Amino acid sequence: MSPLTSFKLSELANILEAELDGNPDIEIFGLSSLDLASEKDISFISRESFIPQLQSTNAAAIICSKALSDHYKGSKLISDDPYLLYAKCSSLFKSKPLQNPGISKLASVDSSASVADSAVISNFVSVSKNSIIEDDVILMPGVFIGNDTVVRKGTIIHSNASIYESIEIGEGCIIHSGVVIGSDGLGFAKESNQWVKIEHLGKVLIGNNVELGSNTTIDRGSVGDTVLGDNIKIDNLVHIAHNVSIGSGSAIAANSAIAGSTKIGKNCTLAGCTALVDNIQIVDEVHITAKSLITKSIKESGIYSSGTPFMKNSDWKKNAVGFKKLHKLSKL
Amino acid sequence: MSPLTSFKLSELANILEAELDGNPDIEIFGLSSLDLASEKDISFISRESFIPQLQSTNAAAIICSKALSDHYKGSKLISDDPYLLYAKCSSLFKSKPLQNPGISKLASVDSSASVADSAVISNFVSVSKNSIIEDDVILMPGVFIGNDTVVRKGTIIHSNASIYESIEIGEGCIIHSGVVIGSDGLGFAKESNQWVKIEHLGKVLIGNNVELGSNTTIDRGSVGDTVLGDNIKIDNLVHIAHNVSIGSGSAIAANSAIAGSTKIGKNCTLAGCTALVDNIQIVDEVHITAKSLITKSIKESGIYSSGTPFMKNSDWKKNAVGFKKLHKLSKL
Amino acid sequence: MSPLTSFKLSELANILEAELDGNPDIEIFGLSSLDLASEKDISFISRESFIPQLQSTNAAAIICSKALSDHYKGSKLISDDPYLLYAKCSSLFKSKPLQNPGISKLASVDSSASVADSAVISNFVSVSKNSIIEDDVILMPGVFIGNDTVVRKGTIIHSNASIYESIEIGEGCIIHSGVVIGSDGLGFAKESNQWVKIEHLGKVLIGNNVELGSNTTIDRGSVGDTVLGDNIKIDNLVHIAHNVSIGSGSAIAANSAIAGSTKIGKNCTLAGCTALVDNIQIVDEVHITAKSLITKSIKESGIYSSGTPFMKNSDWKKNAVGFKKLHKLSKL
Repeated sequence: MSPLTSFKLSELANILEAELDGNPDIEIFGLSSLDLASEKDISFISRESFIPQLQSTNAAAIICSKALSDHYKGSKLISDDPYLLYAKCSSLFKSKPLQNPGISKLASVDSSASVADSAVISNFVSVSKNSIIEDDVILMPGVFIGNDTVVRKGTIIHSNASIYESIEIGEGCIIHSGVVIGSDGLGFAKESNQWVKIEHLGKVLIGNNVELGSNTTIDRGSVGDTVLGDNIKIDNLVHIAHNVSIGSGSAIAANSAIAGSTKIGKNCTLAGCTALVDNIQIVDEVHITAKSLITKSIKESGIYSSGTPFMKNSDWKKNAVGFKKLHKLSKL
Repeated sequence: MSPLTSFKLSELANILEAELDGNPDIEIFGLSSLDLASEKDISFISRESFIPQLQSTNAAAIICSKALSDHYKGSKLISDDPYLLYAKCSSLFKSKPLQNPGISKLASVDSSASVADSAVISNFVSVSKNSIIEDDVILMPGVFIGNDTVVRKGTIIHSNASIYESIEIGEGCIIHSGVVIGSDGLGFAKESNQWVKIEHLGKVLIGNNVELGSNTTIDRGSVGDTVLGDNIKIDNLVHIAHNVSIGSGSAIAANSAIAGSTKIGKNCTLAGCTALVDNIQIVDEVHITAKSLITKSIKESGIYSSGTPFMKNSDWKKNAVGFKKLHKLSKL
Repeated sequence: MSPLTSFKLSELANILEAELDGNPDIEIFGLSSLDLASEKDISFISRESFIPQLQSTNAAAIICSKALSDHYKGSKLISDDPYLLYAKCSSLFKSKPLQNPGISKLASVDSSASVADSAVISNFVSVSKNSIIEDDVILMPGVFIGNDTVVRKGTIIHSNASIYESIEIGEGCIIHSGVVIGSDGLGFAKESNQWVKIEHLGKVLIGNNVELGSNTTIDRGSVGDTVLGDNIKIDNLVHIAHNVSIGSGSAIAANSAIAGSTKIGKNCTLAGCTALVDNIQIVDEVHITAKSLITKSIKESGIYSSGTPFMKNSDWKKNAVGFKKLHKLSKL
């Protein structure tokens, strides 16, 4: 239903700065995978395991590396990094519906808040006292912005996300639906067997070009702040506790959890379902495999893992019994 | 506060197609567990471990199997599958408040959207451009529906769920509160140590009679779509990544995560907190035990597991030390 | 931007019932960590590992134990439990903006609902039929309250939380954004390879002084109720299934999941990412370490664990291979 965008293959080569091998005049209307592409689409190959699909694809052209280009007779764009070329190409075919700037009549903006003329404030959005919404920000329906919060240029916050008071979100961020930023951490002292709440006096500070996946939650600092650097990419349903800090360029996959006051370096990657306990430090360039639990600081970059391999349950049961005897076995 | 529903035991036997043994005229006002049932309730037993409770229950009647019927002297409905009978019985006693069809004055429906006369559009709901809301759909307060999205007959979407653009949701689905469908996946290429976003051009396609638990998130496809078949049941806080496909009849318990482009067959069950890495295939009728990590394709149906048994922490520490020496031990 | 609160050190000593050692007239404007505190802040030390920071802190005064007081020459408040004193002190410096009581013109309250005059009903809140909102309750923007639900005195529910019908929430609770209470559990019977839904006829009953972290989900009972006692603290993204019961004083850290009908005793603690399978009982005073899976009832209080230690991936791979041979090794 969106108006169709199209490019000649020569235009794509030009925009994407790729080498063109084939018919420059082919009209390309979309981007798709090798198996799903129609004769109007460009496709791409970034792994050797997909070579067999090069024979059967209907794509009008493909994006590939020099090394793989011999496997495909049709028109192609050749690049040292075809996956990067694919990423850049994807943005050309993404239709982003125009949103009219301005404040919906069904929104609520406090009179003390500052909203740029070019910002979009949708239905059922609340912008609270003294908050600042900068140029080209888009707040989708149902977003809540607490008091004294700043959302910088060009950031989009998707529907039903909740941003508490005194939060700073940088430029060009993408915050997906249901994200919560600024809730209190799990901080309590005990007195006569009752929990006494530690009030969270800190903020959450988020850098530029950060993307947060849907329903991810980021707690505010207790004393001091929770801090995310620039260019951080976090997936869905990730928990970032109070006073965590994450270095720029790091990425965290879905359902992971980082406990309180833990510090993650730059350009780290955490695969899905990883967990880091509280009060540890992880240096730059650390990579953690799926579902690992990290219980101590990591002082050397590299790849780290915990857990066991999976197997048939009948085999697993026998090995699991063995695990219970490991303290004896290891004395052999 | 809801009006009371009641059935004679003979009516229940008739509706549920069960064998009646006892007083057909007992009036039944509700359904409850053996320990909580009052003299006005029917109860049920589906596991032998509950036999002792048959002596002490106050229930007016019970649902049981032929095999267990000798353990209970009172009135009963007998069935080959008492758990199934209990499920069917539960729907008789569920009060579903009437909702008046129509669009709330506090909702926002774009003029280009199509909303059936019998649909319920509650307060603070946004229905965006060109979306289609079919007969008997209920959108509870705070639901967001993006552009070009279709919600088919009889589906209910609970409060504060967010459905992005170009999503298709089938007939008779139940989408619980806080669910997000159609957010972008964690897809990025790297250029000079900066992440370059892969725009997600695909959709999410959901079949009929699918139930999604609260705060579950389903990402849209990057190229190609994320696809859920019919009759799929997903629990709370589950992550379904971009381009995942799930076969009909499969069920996934809470806090599980399925990574990008992984394909799950039909009639599979994943227990809670399981994780599947990206780009693998799981055949039909695979069952995965709680908290397992599946790192490779599974080509044979059956039960699969990973992890270790739990034990006292003092014992665990000794065995955990042994795990570190396993590479030496296994050379013995 | 909030008005500044300040206390003389002598006032703090008085309010917090602590021993003062130093200058009683120092004016304290805030509370911060040793490394971040300015000359206007009080700070605290609760672990010996922070002793080196006592030399370099700019804090105006510190909270410490008798044992550690010799390490700091400046003014201090001395306490047997400095962490508890810190917790109490934090509440003095938390600015809680005044909210005007009353019902926003942009909210929707059913005429059959009862809302106390002192309650705050914010923008885009729905309060449904026969619900009761007691004194001093605050419902932040976008909160949904279903039919026949009760929210007792002094409870705050943060933005975009969803509370289904027939839920009872006690006094003085804090429910963070995106929380869902009362959704259906994953309960189905099978008939000819199709799932048959078990309707959830029960409620969720929540005691007093309970705190629920953001995007946590609590399912209603199928038959019988889901029950949380008093003084329970639950972190973000936690799943509490249908018919779970949790004893008073227990705490559950982020991304944990408790499966259906499981019962947790009093004063238990579950670290992050733990999972408990369905239909088990955990006695009082049980503590479970991070990412453990508990598959059987625990009848003795203590600390329990599962999983393996983490290590470099290259080492882990070798040990993981050994795990597969454990059933043979354990026969040695």
